[in-house]
Amino acid sequence: MAAALQPDLDLAASLFEGLSRTTRRGRGVVRDSYGIGEQAAHDLIRTAATAIGLEIGIDAIGNLFMTLPGRDRRAPRIIMGSHLDSVPQGGNYDGAAGVVAGLCVLSALRRAGLVPDWDLSVMAIRAEESAWFDVPYLGSAGAFGLLDPACLSTPRSDNGVSLEATMQQQGFDPQPIRERQRLLDPARIRAYLELHIEQGPTLVAEGLPAAVVSGIRGCKRFRSARCVGEYAHSGAVARRHRHDAVAATVAFLHHMETVWLQQEEAGADLVLTAGELFTDPALHGPSKIAGETHFVLDLRSLSAATMDAVATEARATALRIGTAYRVNIDLGATSDSPPAVMDSRLRARLMALLEHPFEMASGAGHDASVFANLGVRAGMIFVRNAHGSHNSDEAMDMRDFAAAARVLFDVVADEAMQ
Amino acid sequence: MAAALQPDLDLAASLFEGLSRTTRRGRGVVRDSYGIGEQAAHDLIRTAATAIGLEIGIDAIGNLFMTLPGRDRRAPRIIMGSHLDSVPQGGNYDGAAGVVAGLCVLSALRRAGLVPDWDLSVMAIRAEESAWFDVPYLGSAGAFGLLDPACLSTPRSDNGVSLEATMQQQGFDPQPIRERQRLLDPARIRAYLELHIEQGPTLVAEGLPAAVVSGIRGCKRFRSARCVGEYAHSGAVARRHRHDAVAATVAFLHHMETVWLQQEEAGADLVLTAGELFTDPALHGPSKIAGETHFVLDLRSLSAATMDAVATEARATALRIGTAYRVNIDLGATSDSPPAVMDSRLRARLMALLEHPFEMASGAGHDASVFANLGVRAGMIFVRNAHGSHNSDEAMDMRDFAAAARVLFDVVADEAMQ
Repeated sequence: MAAALQPDLDLAASLFEGLSRTTRRGRGVVRDSYGIGEQAAHDLIRTAATAIGLEIGIDAIGNLFMTLPGRDRRAPRIIMGSHLDSVPQGGNYDGAAGVVAGLCVLSALRRAGLVPDWDLSVMAIRAEESAWFDVPYLGSAGAFGLLDPACLSTPRSDNGVSLEATMQQQGFDPQPIRERQRLLDPARIRAYLELHIEQGPTLVAEGLPAAVVSGIRGCKRFRSARCVGEYAHSGAVARRHRHDAVAATVAFLHHMETVWLQQEEAGADLVLTAGELFTDPALHGPSKIAGETHFVLDLRSLSAATMDAVATEARATALRIGTAYRVNIDLGATSDSPPAVMDSRLRARLMALLEHPFEMASGAGHDASVFANLGVRAGMIFVRNAHGSHNSDEAMDMRDFAAAARVLFDVVADEAMQ
Repeated sequence: MAAALQPDLDLAASLFEGLSRTTRRGRGVVRDSYGIGEQAAHDLIRTAATAIGLEIGIDAIGNLFMTLPGRDRRAPRIIMGSHLDSVPQGGNYDGAAGVVAGLCVLSALRRAGLVPDWDLSVMAIRAEESAWFDVPYLGSAGAFGLLDPACLSTPRSDNGVSLEATMQQQGFDPQPIRERQRLLDPARIRAYLELHIEQGPTLVAEGLPAAVVSGIRGCKRFRSARCVGEYAHSGAVARRHRHDAVAATVAFLHHMETVWLQQEEAGADLVLTAGELFTDPALHGPSKIAGETHFVLDLRSLSAATMDAVATEARATALRIGTAYRVNIDLGATSDSPPAVMDSRLRARLMALLEHPFEMASGAGHDASVFANLGVRAGMIFVRNAHGSHNSDEAMDMRDFAAAARVLFDVVADEAMQ
C-alpha cells in the first residue's frame, strides 16, 4: 500500500519548498509563534489540505485541524500532528515534517478512495517552541486547557508584545487559555502520532533513516547551583588550607559523571550535562584561588525514578565534596518536567514496520509528551537529520522522510481500518 | 641581646601607626608605586632613619638606603629590605613590616653603641607590587639593571600615565632603566634579609608567630587554556556522540588534581590552581552541551623540575582526555617565573633562632627572589598574619612582629659582628 505514496511524496517536497520560500529570512527560517511567519506556514498547509479535499477546522487558539472523515464520525479519532512554528533562524523541517507527513498520509488514502473507520486528522499545532514566549507547547497544552493563564502576559522575546496581545493581533482568542478551557478532549482521541526530525546525531551515526521513539525524556534541572569557597592567593595557600571553589566543583562534577556511567551500566536511560559553569569574572584572577562558581546541572531520563535517584545522589555528593573541600556546594531547587513514555503497542507496531528496527529516547520535548501525559496513546517516529535542529543547517534527506512517512502511513492504516 | 629591643619595638609600633594614618584612604591603605602614597611612606621612614642617626642615600630610581656604617666601609654590606608600596586598598603590613623591622634592628644596634664589621643597610624598595604598572619588582630589578626598558611605557592601571612620566613627576630618573644600568652590584652584597608578613593562612593554622622561608615558588602558568568541543542539545545527544567541553575540562582538571596529590606524596613542593574557568556566556545555556571552555592552570613550586614535569603531564593529559572526549584541549603557551631558593646556611641559622622552628615555601613573589636569582645569599622570615594580604583586613599582631624582629636582629648581629 505504502508503495503507492509517490505522488504524495512529490506533494510533500513541494510543500517543504513552499515553506522554505515563504518563511526564509536570510540563512534560516523564521516562523514566529503566533506571528506572521507561523501564519504563512499555516496558510500554505491549509491551502494544500483544501486542495486534497480535507475538512478544515481551526480552534479558538489557532490550531489547524485537517480531517479525512471516517465511517463513524462519533468515534474517537486519530490525530497525526506536529507544530509549524520555528525558533528564530531555525531550519525548515523541525515541526513541519510531521504536519507534511500527515498530509501525505491523508492524501494517499484520499487518492486511493479509502474511507477510515473513524476520523483521521492532521493537527498543525501552534507555538510549540519556547523561543518566542518562553513557554513551550502553547498550542497543544492550550488546546487541553493546561496552560497557566499567567503565560498570557509573557512578552515576546524580541518585541516585548504580550502573548495575549499577539494572539489578538492575529485574530485568535486568549479567553480559553484564561479560563483553562478544554478545546480538545483526550478521551476523544484514539491515538496521537508524530513524525519529527531527530534533533541529535544518533541516526546519522548509526546510518539509519528512521527510529521509533521510546519516550520523551523528562528533565530535572539544578538551574542555579553554586559553590562558595574563599578567594586566596594561588601560590601562598597550601592544599589543606584551601577553600577552592573550582577544585570542589570539578570533584563534584567528576563524581556525577561516574554516577552517570554507573546508571548506564545498569541499563538506565540518562543524560547528564553541566552546560554552564563559570567563575565570577569580576572577582576571579589567574593568580587567585576561586572563591565561587556557578553552574547548571541538567538531568534527563525516561524514568522519573532515575532522575530522582541521581538528584538524591547529587545532593549527597554536594555535601560530601563540600565538607572535603571546605566549601559550600548549594545545588538549589530543581525545575522539573515529567518524562512521557510512548504507548507500548504503538512502539511495537512501529518497530515491526521499520526495515532496520531501532528505538531511541527523545531528549528534546515534543507535543507528543502533552498528549501522552494526558493518557492518550502516543507514538513517535524520528527521521534522520544532519547538523541538529534549531539552526539553519538542518538537513533531512527526502528519501529518509519517505521511509518514515511510509511507516506512518502503515501504522495509521492499521489503526484506522480494522 | 635581642631582649633589649623593646624601645625599638615601640618605635616600630609608632611607625606602623604613622604609615596607616598617612596613607589610609577609606578602609584600605593606598601606597601607589611611584605615586604620592608610596612617597608619603618613604618620607615617614626617612625621617625616622634620620632621627636614629643613619646615613641616608636614595638611588636614581627612588630606592631609599638607610645605613649604619661598619668598621670596613669597603667590604660588601648586608641589606635588610622590603617594599613600601601597596596594592590599591591594601593592608598596612605587606612590605612595610620588613622595612620597619630593619629600622628596629639598626636602631637597637645604634642605641647599644655597637659598630658592625661592615655596613648594614635597610633598603626601602620602590614599586614591588604589579598592581599599578603590571610589572613586579620595579625597584629591586631596576636597581640591578634587569628591567626591560619597554616597561617604561606601561600605563598606570588607574590613570593611564606611563611609568616613565610617573617617575619623572616624582623627580626620579628613568634613564638607568632605559640603559639597563646597574645601580647596585650583587657582588657588593654580603647577604639580603627580608622580613614579610605571610600572605596565606599557614601560620595562623599552625599557631606559630613566625617561619623561615625555604624559597619563593616559581610559577608556570597556562594563562589561556581552552577546550573546544561542539554545542548541542543537552537532552538529545547520547554520551558517546558528545563533544562536551565542560565534561572534558572537568576530567582534565580532576586528573591534574591526582597528579598534584602524587607529587605531594612524593615529597615535592607544588600548588596547582585553576582560578578562572568559564563557559561562554554568549553561547552557553542551561539546556545546551557546552562547546567551549576557557581556563587558567597555574603551577607553582620551589623546583623548576617539578613544574616542568607537571606541565609535561598536563600536556599529555590534555591530549589523552581530548581524544577520549572528542574535543580539543589547547593549553597554549606558559608564562614562567623561576623559583628562588633561599641560602641554606641562612635558613639553618634562622631555624635555630626560632623558638618553634618551622620552615615553609612562599607562594607569592618577593624582592628577595630578585636578589637570590642574582646569586646574593638571601634569607626570609614570615610573620603570622590573619586574613591574607592585598586587602584592608591584614592583621599582624605586634607580639608576632617582635618575635620575628628579634630573629632578624640575631641573624644580622651574627652576620655583621664576627
